[in-house]
Amino acid sequence: MSIHFPKLACAVLIFAALCYVPVQAADVPQFDYPSDYRNWIFLTSGLDMNYSEGMGADHHMFDNVFVNPEAYKVFQATGRWPDKTVLVKEMRGGQTKGSINRNGMFQQVGVMELEVHAKDEKRFPGQWAFFAFGDTKPAAAIPQGAQCYACHGSHGAVDNTFVQFYPTLKPIAEGKKTFSASYLKDESAQK
Amino acid sequence: MSIHFPKLACAVLIFAALCYVPVQAADVPQFDYPSDYRNWIFLTSGLDMNYSEGMGADHHMFDNVFVNPEAYKVFQATGRWPDKTVLVKEMRGGQTKGSINRNGMFQQVGVMELEVHAKDEKRFPGQWAFFAFGDTKPAAAIPQGAQCYACHGSHGAVDNTFVQFYPTLKPIAEGKKTFSASYLKDESAQK
Repeated sequence: MSIHFPKLACAVLIFAALCYVPVQAADVPQFDYPSDYRNWIFLTSGLDMNYSEGMGADHHMFDNVFVNPEAYKVFQATGRWPDKTVLVKEMRGGQTKGSINRNGMFQQVGVMELEVHAKDEKRFPGQWAFFAFGDTKPAAAIPQGAQCYACHGSHGAVDNTFVQFYPTLKPIAEGKKTFSASYLKDESAQK
Repeated sequence: MSIHFPKLACAVLIFAALCYVPVQAADVPQFDYPSDYRNWIFLTSGLDMNYSEGMGADHHMFDNVFVNPEAYKVFQATGRWPDKTVLVKEMRGGQTKGSINRNGMFQQVGVMELEVHAKDEKRFPGQWAFFAFGDTKPAAAIPQGAQCYACHGSHGAVDNTFVQFYPTLKPIAEGKKTFSASYLKDESAQK
């Protein structure tokens, strides 16, 4: 599969790179491009989701989230992610006018960005690591000091992941009582 | 899985029912609720898609489209749908404020509507039939005179289906040259 990298996505990545801790150790974990993720289990799709106020963009982006089937089965049974869970977030542009569509938005052909959030209890400090792919080559882990780790750790509903936005999994975690203490605190603060 | 039917969805269905040809023959084909469709192949998700100008709604709806894995494999190889293809469109409400999200939209837990578009060359006149599910009971086919059949037949990029909106399949159909004559006519008229 080809990944299209328009100028805009490059700008986003350059900005993200600047925000990350720039020093990487020599033994940074690598992760292979998960080429069959479109055959995995779909968790959800969001549009232009943003956790900050007032950060509107002049383009629209869908994010489709997939998980490896083995991890999905374990989550359905336990409300928890097993070791070797791999979540993939695929970003595609949103378009309104095209073919006979006149309102709302559909997804464009080219993938703009691909990100992986993987659990490996032995390999990754904190058990989880993020990877961003610009093409199908293996990627190096984003350093643990990056903001994404802190945000997922503080606000993810289950084990560093945003299960609160995965409609088939949120009720399972609720039933199994596996929501994190920090997520429950977030929720009670909003009431 | 439970299906939530708020008043709004009921109103939509009642409106749809009025638009359909109201007379059904005694031997209307039935279709079982495809309870495992969330384990199938995800094709795309759209938001508030509409083929008419100016029909904005006061709510937001994502539509997630899935297909049975056997049919997906055949399409990847041939650019065509085999007999017994089943496409599922699952509608979920879109929400902006929730947890730490502040912009854009994420998908809500409850399924608002579920529709099936199935191919059965022997059972269905015109090979394809539509079914709308209000719960997990089997549904009767929407009559062939309904507008959905005519629109899919005239504007679907491949064999009565909107492959032009399925980002992983559109390039395959293009490569295999399986676009319908009517779709190619639509596209050339827009240039």
